[in-house]
Amino acid sequence: MAIKGTSVDLNSDMGEGFGAYRMGDDPAILKIVTSANIACGFHGGDPEIMASTFTQAKALGVTPGAHPGYPDLWGFGRRDMVFSPEEIERLIAYQVGAALGVSTYAGHPIKYVKTHGALGHQTYHSVEVATAVCRAVKAVDPSLILLSIANGQQDKIAREMGIPSKAEIYADRGYDEAGFLISRKLPGALLKDADQAAQRILRMLEMGGVETASGKYLTTPIDSICVHSDTPGAIDMASRVRARLEDAGVTVKAFA
Amino acid sequence: MAIKGTSVDLNSDMGEGFGAYRMGDDPAILKIVTSANIACGFHGGDPEIMASTFTQAKALGVTPGAHPGYPDLWGFGRRDMVFSPEEIERLIAYQVGAALGVSTYAGHPIKYVKTHGALGHQTYHSVEVATAVCRAVKAVDPSLILLSIANGQQDKIAREMGIPSKAEIYADRGYDEAGFLISRKLPGALLKDADQAAQRILRMLEMGGVETASGKYLTTPIDSICVHSDTPGAIDMASRVRARLEDAGVTVKAFA
Amino acid sequence: MAIKGTSVDLNSDMGEGFGAYRMGDDPAILKIVTSANIACGFHGGDPEIMASTFTQAKALGVTPGAHPGYPDLWGFGRRDMVFSPEEIERLIAYQVGAALGVSTYAGHPIKYVKTHGALGHQTYHSVEVATAVCRAVKAVDPSLILLSIANGQQDKIAREMGIPSKAEIYADRGYDEAGFLISRKLPGALLKDADQAAQRILRMLEMGGVETASGKYLTTPIDSICVHSDTPGAIDMASRVRARLEDAGVTVKAFA
Amino acid sequence: MAIKGTSVDLNSDMGEGFGAYRMGDDPAILKIVTSANIACGFHGGDPEIMASTFTQAKALGVTPGAHPGYPDLWGFGRRDMVFSPEEIERLIAYQVGAALGVSTYAGHPIKYVKTHGALGHQTYHSVEVATAVCRAVKAVDPSLILLSIANGQQDKIAREMGIPSKAEIYADRGYDEAGFLISRKLPGALLKDADQAAQRILRMLEMGGVETASGKYLTTPIDSICVHSDTPGAIDMASRVRARLEDAGVTVKAFA
Repeated sequence: MAIKGTSVDLNSDMGEGFGAYRMGDDPAILKIVTSANIACGFHGGDPEIMASTFTQAKALGVTPGAHPGYPDLWGFGRRDMVFSPEEIERLIAYQVGAALGVSTYAGHPIKYVKTHGALGHQTYHSVEVATAVCRAVKAVDPSLILLSIANGQQDKIAREMGIPSKAEIYADRGYDEAGFLISRKLPGALLKDADQAAQRILRMLEMGGVETASGKYLTTPIDSICVHSDTPGAIDMASRVRARLEDAGVTVKAFA
Repeated sequence: MAIKGTSVDLNSDMGEGFGAYRMGDDPAILKIVTSANIACGFHGGDPEIMASTFTQAKALGVTPGAHPGYPDLWGFGRRDMVFSPEEIERLIAYQVGAALGVSTYAGHPIKYVKTHGALGHQTYHSVEVATAVCRAVKAVDPSLILLSIANGQQDKIAREMGIPSKAEIYADRGYDEAGFLISRKLPGALLKDADQAAQRILRMLEMGGVETASGKYLTTPIDSICVHSDTPGAIDMASRVRARLEDAGVTVKAFA
Repeated sequence: MAIKGTSVDLNSDMGEGFGAYRMGDDPAILKIVTSANIACGFHGGDPEIMASTFTQAKALGVTPGAHPGYPDLWGFGRRDMVFSPEEIERLIAYQVGAALGVSTYAGHPIKYVKTHGALGHQTYHSVEVATAVCRAVKAVDPSLILLSIANGQQDKIAREMGIPSKAEIYADRGYDEAGFLISRKLPGALLKDADQAAQRILRMLEMGGVETASGKYLTTPIDSICVHSDTPGAIDMASRVRARLEDAGVTVKAFA
Repeated sequence: MAIKGTSVDLNSDMGEGFGAYRMGDDPAILKIVTSANIACGFHGGDPEIMASTFTQAKALGVTPGAHPGYPDLWGFGRRDMVFSPEEIERLIAYQVGAALGVSTYAGHPIKYVKTHGALGHQTYHSVEVATAVCRAVKAVDPSLILLSIANGQQDKIAREMGIPSKAEIYADRGYDEAGFLISRKLPGALLKDADQAAQRILRMLEMGGVETASGKYLTTPIDSICVHSDTPGAIDMASRVRARLEDAGVTVKAFA
């Protein structure tokens, strides 16, 4: 399809520091993206950092979302953990509630939820985990949008449950033939060239699907593009991706 | 005044365990009280215990409240800590939000907020701390009631700020001449006889004020009576207090 | 063999509270056992409880050991976690060091190490985990004894590595045909009758091996018997087991 | 006195990250200093970072020390906390033990102890806190050196108790007329010019005392100079301080 005249969202994880610790360049990435996934204090983030990030997002007109993860500050939420679906529901209810509390306090209430790290990956593969996240978000606030990995279980289940769902692709991560992210331990996991990444995004938007390593396309809605703020060259990558999208006539704006 | 025909609330702290650890006899105290102050995960409590306690409170028709404290699991929120008023605002916004999230998930949304331990005591004495708590609760959800220590700063400030405020007295704690709780390190801090405690409560309700060690009364609204669940004889004390109130023609019911 | 005139150790986990939280009846169990597995602050325990427990153990002549677990206070160290063998080595080195520090400060230095919960179970099954524990303990202090589950990987590997190793059986847990503990979710997991448990222990000591559910014996050294302090009837069970052993002419004394 | 031919130690805090979080440029500062104050997991640091930092210090011939602080990861150990002297003893015993465990495991056992942040500052002013630290270190391992703030209570008390004690000055912090660090909130707290800082150090070494804001000298032993690794320009400052010392004929070497 012609992408000129269409629009897409740019999202990034942020507010993932803790106390004196910083993670990523939040002030820089906030000027580029349209949606901010803000950590909720379990894998990163604390009430001070959350309030400050919501306030900055408000000042820059960036749509705020909750970014809940496993209760594992030491592992930054990237370590697989063993929780039952019921326990995951409560982990989500707690963190989404906390994000609602702090964002409302800051005058910029969250509009969506995107899960983090190991939990986020599990929502792609696991029907049980994806269902648990959907059930919790719907129970806490049915007006909240779920931002899901394109082509995964959660996007499908959320739509089935009547939860507003948006799908995201990654700007700089390679996809395997099933449409999932190639492990960071394997070649092809990471696109380092910003222009190459931007070109691939434009192709994915045009084809309406995820581009696999072999060049196939798996049809999926694409509502948002995830960019990083905490890897070397991340800010430059995000900035160029946004510029290329706008050069191609795509409007970059929040889905919510 | 005649207390026959009047009504009063009975509240107790609960959900203060953590993981495998238990604190107090929640199932027993839930059958006696009308309002449940449920810990929010900072000084005690976790998402599992919170969800379970909200669910039990719902089944028994007990009104749920958030019970936020300092982020000090090791000190159970009883250790004085150094936070600025702004930091306290965010600690409260986070925990009240988390409690809203989990209680809504459990189908029994919180109606009020009561602070815990060292933080709670500071809301009695300190205008700054009391104001911070009021500001945070009002910002997160202006319909939430604040449950404050009778005769203290928070009750006064909340009313000034237009926040619905209720005042509580302690069933088994002695009051000094300023109307504050006598330190647990001093004689007269704790009333151990349930009938004596109940008689004093009836006198306070009749006189419309806190009874000090010397037998004076400091006029204050009394909307609720706080009973414990985690001290020896606590359940018996709470049970008898309730029975004596009902014998005297006082209706025991939630303020919210 | 005739067990009259032989000796065996009785060990129990303790010091597993945290701050205001208590776990098990430490004062009671300390009067019964000869070795105390004292938690190190990761799955339970804190510097105050550790110091106090070492001091009580000293007063009662109970041999102290370190009881390290996974860094999971919320899950009480019972949740399986994903750590590499190298990470496990450092978790052990840290906790054993901390226990050495506090026990030396308390005037009653630890003599042995026994791992806790999910980590302990993994040392039974997994060569990698067992080797990691052995390597860490040997590196920190080669004079420390390792207390291992009878018939498991760690006991075997420790002996191969020249680490002094002692093997324990459980007083009240059923064994499957491979000699491992029957899951608590299955029938036969728990012996509730103290006399029955004591009789089985005497048979195991006589036969020199673990008694499986079908009545077979798997030959293994038995240096110690593990009793609980935190289950209903635990203190009574421990007390009767000790009495039956002594009635049978077995001397109950620490292995170290 | 003539400082040519004398020697002094350079120390810096390090290993203060946590999980995925980094703090300071440890690899750079390790090439400059002669003593490494390595965090013990309470205000910062974890078993992985500790082991890695001890291993790097060993490779570069840097003397390792334990750097215990308050149990306050969120506040990075800089928040004043309320602990009794006895509780401080156990906090120190635990952390020094943990550092002994991990450093021995890494083949590079700690030789000294230096307290961190709010706890460190309290050892300067408070006889009770300083005594608690001294008692704990002596009880855990009487061969450990205490590194104390020059001119403070701990240095004095340690010497009285027969604990080997070394005194440090700060390369870039201003001193008030009592010899204590000027608060970071006040002017004169921080020297930003490396050459100016180095000149002041040389004057302090020559005069054998701390130089106050008004230019007076308070006589004190100076065994070590503390440089930072986590402030802007810190590595350049440390590097130049070392070069100026060596230019002046001072040998930079560890005190232990």
